[in-house]
Amino acid sequence: MSDKNILKGFSKLSKEEKLSVIASRFTVPEEAVSLLRSFWHRDADMQKMFDEFSENTLTNYYFPFGIAPNVMINGRIYMVPMVIEESSVIAAAANSAKFWSGLGGFKSEIISTIKNGQVHFIWNGNYAKLQAAFPVLREQLLRRTASITANMERRGGGVTGMELVDMTSSLDGYYQLSVKFDTRDSMGANFINSCLEEYAAGLRQFVNESDEFGGEPLQIIMAILSNFTPECVVRTWVECDVKDFAGIDEMLSAEEFAWKFEKAVQIASADVYRAATHNKGIFNGVDAVALSTGNDFRAIEACGHAWAARDGKYRSLTEVSIQNGRFHYSLTLPIAIGTVGGLTSLHPMARFSLELLGNPGAPELMQIASSIGLANNFGAVKSLTTKGIQVGHMKMHLLNILNMLMADEQEKLRAVEYFKHHKVSHNAVAAFLASIRNGVSPYN
Amino acid sequence: MSDKNILKGFSKLSKEEKLSVIASRFTVPEEAVSLLRSFWHRDADMQKMFDEFSENTLTNYYFPFGIAPNVMINGRIYMVPMVIEESSVIAAAANSAKFWSGLGGFKSEIISTIKNGQVHFIWNGNYAKLQAAFPVLREQLLRRTASITANMERRGGGVTGMELVDMTSSLDGYYQLSVKFDTRDSMGANFINSCLEEYAAGLRQFVNESDEFGGEPLQIIMAILSNFTPECVVRTWVECDVKDFAGIDEMLSAEEFAWKFEKAVQIASADVYRAATHNKGIFNGVDAVALSTGNDFRAIEACGHAWAARDGKYRSLTEVSIQNGRFHYSLTLPIAIGTVGGLTSLHPMARFSLELLGNPGAPELMQIASSIGLANNFGAVKSLTTKGIQVGHMKMHLLNILNMLMADEQEKLRAVEYFKHHKVSHNAVAAFLASIRNGVSPYN
Repeated sequence: MSDKNILKGFSKLSKEEKLSVIASRFTVPEEAVSLLRSFWHRDADMQKMFDEFSENTLTNYYFPFGIAPNVMINGRIYMVPMVIEESSVIAAAANSAKFWSGLGGFKSEIISTIKNGQVHFIWNGNYAKLQAAFPVLREQLLRRTASITANMERRGGGVTGMELVDMTSSLDGYYQLSVKFDTRDSMGANFINSCLEEYAAGLRQFVNESDEFGGEPLQIIMAILSNFTPECVVRTWVECDVKDFAGIDEMLSAEEFAWKFEKAVQIASADVYRAATHNKGIFNGVDAVALSTGNDFRAIEACGHAWAARDGKYRSLTEVSIQNGRFHYSLTLPIAIGTVGGLTSLHPMARFSLELLGNPGAPELMQIASSIGLANNFGAVKSLTTKGIQVGHMKMHLLNILNMLMADEQEKLRAVEYFKHHKVSHNAVAAFLASIRNGVSPYN
Repeated sequence: MSDKNILKGFSKLSKEEKLSVIASRFTVPEEAVSLLRSFWHRDADMQKMFDEFSENTLTNYYFPFGIAPNVMINGRIYMVPMVIEESSVIAAAANSAKFWSGLGGFKSEIISTIKNGQVHFIWNGNYAKLQAAFPVLREQLLRRTASITANMERRGGGVTGMELVDMTSSLDGYYQLSVKFDTRDSMGANFINSCLEEYAAGLRQFVNESDEFGGEPLQIIMAILSNFTPECVVRTWVECDVKDFAGIDEMLSAEEFAWKFEKAVQIASADVYRAATHNKGIFNGVDAVALSTGNDFRAIEACGHAWAARDGKYRSLTEVSIQNGRFHYSLTLPIAIGTVGGLTSLHPMARFSLELLGNPGAPELMQIASSIGLANNFGAVKSLTTKGIQVGHMKMHLLNILNMLMADEQEKLRAVEYFKHHKVSHNAVAAFLASIRNGVSPYN
């Protein structure tokens, strides 16, 4: 195994040097450098801040920032910022929101906003004795973090629960100190982790410096927040009379549409192949809001999908019921999201998004993100159960295909008109362009 | 419910008009417009292309684009482009890759690359008869898509399997036509969906236009690819002698480190609270590569997390075994990712990323993304089991905190030096800045 290609000290290079090193791998290094530079922000200070978000940064990666207008949630109208690279997601959210705004809009309620973290430890001492001593231990631990929690307590949050959990049935000698937190409007990762690391140190000391508990020394394996937050949950729903669906599709009656829609959601609970895709469409919307407001989408995804499997079978996050002619459709989702801390106030466009939303607190942002998730699920299931996903998706993708085929503005306008009445596919668009180019341009 | 705040026809407005409408919601609309414009690409044509990726677009949202250098995979060295907003992810991947490159690097093999999709239908006819007629039906269906599949077949892909699945034990009358696809280097969503919509039409016709099968007319509920791809799987691993960990941590021997690391991974299989966070850290790396190469991270997340729950319990995607002094650590992950089609060739930075990686095919990109996922998991578990996550994370976050507190370059340099030896927290940084500002600046 030769390491002659290993480049030493890359992280120590200046940004300009990093650019040169990377560009040297391209056929025309000058072009590579100029491409990278072209994505820099024109304000050098602002660009420096983006560079400092992460490590070994060369430039910025652009995602489209768009708006789903007129999203009615609990009677209030929002212009919702969405950041997403996939065509048709924003259009679908906007169309669904428009449909439901005529029927009272989205309703959303917070079930709870408790976050959690664990000190994971391995031990073979006397657990009954440790449990008996736990009230004393708890007091000691809480005292250790008084200086960290003071600020959070002033904002109405803090540590809301602490318990020992016996996990030895899953793994020999495995126990947890499990702690609950209220982090108010922050996602709270740094706060929670700082507390937990103190608790780990205190727990180890309490047990290992005493002769009372027996066994080998307690071993802390790790202390870390959990991204699985089944007590930080929002429930969002829409409802209408089945007959309100009259006219929603050319081919289906209101009753037929409601029946097919219900079956589609039931199928997403019955089959994991459908469930994953169904939930993916929900996260198209949830993540687009998370991204636009500077939140961490990996945390949101991990939580939501693990939760979708909470009863042992991975299934749909949305549910439908039809009773006495009334259609009820809901999304219940754990989502730990913040409106202060992290990048929310540092990324200028995250700040912009939050201001556009009226500077919501975390619970309100949970409601907004889940409403968009429900909107996107409605849009996807509606398309799938009526005209199919491809017509709309390819229509939205048409401009991408035209760009790929180097269409000019005039050609784009003609193509958009033509494909209002024809099926979009890469081949069909290429054929259309060839035909108008042959007919129109004297150079072909 | 009043709709006086509903804004009609937003999507029909020009981009400039949309900007005005949105800016009018801000205290100083001119500032809002100028902020939005400041993120536009300087080349108007390129900006237009970004605008056309999605709908109702106003500007671009920047993500830092960085490099994990010297990632050795199957003996080859890559400079891996990563797009991620979370500080410390790129640094952690780079550090892990450096460590393992000294021990042979990452090894990675493709288990299989088959994708799938379903026609979901509800029917109460004679299933045994339909099964008997299936060979004829299959021929008819394949003929229907001959024009769509011809291109893919030329590239060595196409439809590789088709079967009927009885799902009635999960939901009354629910069956699938389940189809497998080889989409070569493309993610293949449009190809798969186009085929499936044809199969749905053909299936409905075959059953409903015959008297042979009995029952009410077969109802197609939907036809759609699945993001759950348990047959599109890559396995990536590293291995070393336990004694190779000597010196990895000041406090732990090589054996102690290996033991704690193994326990940490076992805990992520024993407990869903830890598993979600553990896997989240894997997706920090996988998604950063997916993003930099224009792939759809929601699809990757949905698949990976649903797969983590495949045996009825949501658990770790990585595994460790220690046998005869040999440490073996692996990630097995289904990941449907593409290197042609979609945004991969349209987004200039996605194209750049793929070129930097040597224009890999989809299987090679699966290996690269999963290696970075394993690298990030190693980095996280190593931090957690040694000095804790906060020291490193806050060190990486230090520049963000300094930016938040409006530190100038001089102050940043002094802070970085000071916090090499002190614990980083928002309060500690604020206190440090206050102290040097009081000491140094004549204006305070």
